[in-house]
Amino acid sequence: MKIFQKKITLNSFPRGTHLITKQIKDNITEIKNIQKGILHIFLQHTSASITINENADLTVREDMENYFNQLVPENEPYFKHTYEGSDDMPAHIKSSILGCELNIPITEGELNLGTWQGIYLCEHRNHGGTRQLVLTLMGN
Amino acid sequence: MKIFQKKITLNSFPRGTHLITKQIKDNITEIKNIQKGILHIFLQHTSASITINENADLTVREDMENYFNQLVPENEPYFKHTYEGSDDMPAHIKSSILGCELNIPITEGELNLGTWQGIYLCEHRNHGGTRQLVLTLMGN
Amino acid sequence: MKIFQKKITLNSFPRGTHLITKQIKDNITEIKNIQKGILHIFLQHTSASITINENADLTVREDMENYFNQLVPENEPYFKHTYEGSDDMPAHIKSSILGCELNIPITEGELNLGTWQGIYLCEHRNHGGTRQLVLTLMGN
Repeated sequence: MKIFQKKITLNSFPRGTHLITKQIKDNITEIKNIQKGILHIFLQHTSASITINENADLTVREDMENYFNQLVPENEPYFKHTYEGSDDMPAHIKSSILGCELNIPITEGELNLGTWQGIYLCEHRNHGGTRQLVLTLMGN
Repeated sequence: MKIFQKKITLNSFPRGTHLITKQIKDNITEIKNIQKGILHIFLQHTSASITINENADLTVREDMENYFNQLVPENEPYFKHTYEGSDDMPAHIKSSILGCELNIPITEGELNLGTWQGIYLCEHRNHGGTRQLVLTLMGN
Repeated sequence: MKIFQKKITLNSFPRGTHLITKQIKDNITEIKNIQKGILHIFLQHTSASITINENADLTVREDMENYFNQLVPENEPYFKHTYEGSDDMPAHIKSSILGCELNIPITEGELNLGTWQGIYLCEHRNHGGTRQLVLTLMGN
């Protein structure tokens, strides 16, 4: 069983939902040496998230962003954690709803995603800056 | 360390929340050869989801389906991704909220679930069709 | 590749969101022997959850609890699963939204969390009692 680990930095994304499957693949080409295994993707932040969703149509990503903005409104009168602006606490909540880590199976040297699946980085802050991912690959 | 991987197809389920613990166990009997390990379950779709919840009372599954239908309403005026009907975009959103993958510990040849835990397949489409799972088992 | 597995019991927490990073670390000191790997944390319950969020400011945990209480209201007229009180079904729903399991990378003998990340136990019941975690550590 092999194990490989690497930390990568994603460039700043604007607030919204972005497809990062290609960036992941390009940054961990060791996947091609694994016949059966798992890639773990871990986002080291609490105001962004990663999730899997539809990889083809931009309107899914736009609807996702709009939906989560109404699900977790800014300026709720009971929010206390508002030091960094109205997008601060909603970003933390969205991060826990969507999650900060994923496992994806590796089969015959490839991410074994479904036809329509892509990896999303959801940037919940207005100015989130660069984001760090720890990638851990295990398998044979 | 052993690794075993398998793809299985679940028969079509009606829209709603369904217990699939037995189907998982019956399809990956190699679990009995693992003393300590992890089973990764990966759903290759973006309009269904898998989650863990109460395994005994059907009313939990019914209340879950009803709750998520009001949480993510169909026909939101701002939804753009509605090509396949009013259940299209809500299904994608529910899939990201609930998630498409799970890890479950294996202990002494068994899934080490809590007494009341079962694995749910949540079918968010009116006519979702068959669904594919990639199962990856690692351990000793 | 080494694998280590352990079951631990958390003392009863009051309803709300609690930081448990230190309890996890103190209970699985074998992490220090792993240079590259993954820690899997599995909560064996369906009315509590574990998630990762901000580790420094108590107001994040308070706002999280308040937000999820309004997101999943008690006493919804359509809830059928209410045998154990008005906090019963909402606890199950919150558990699936937030999730009952996490993977965290291990790097050079430490949990490789981001600077602001901590592990939360979210107790969704008014009187949840003790909670069991199965910890599985894999790596070199």
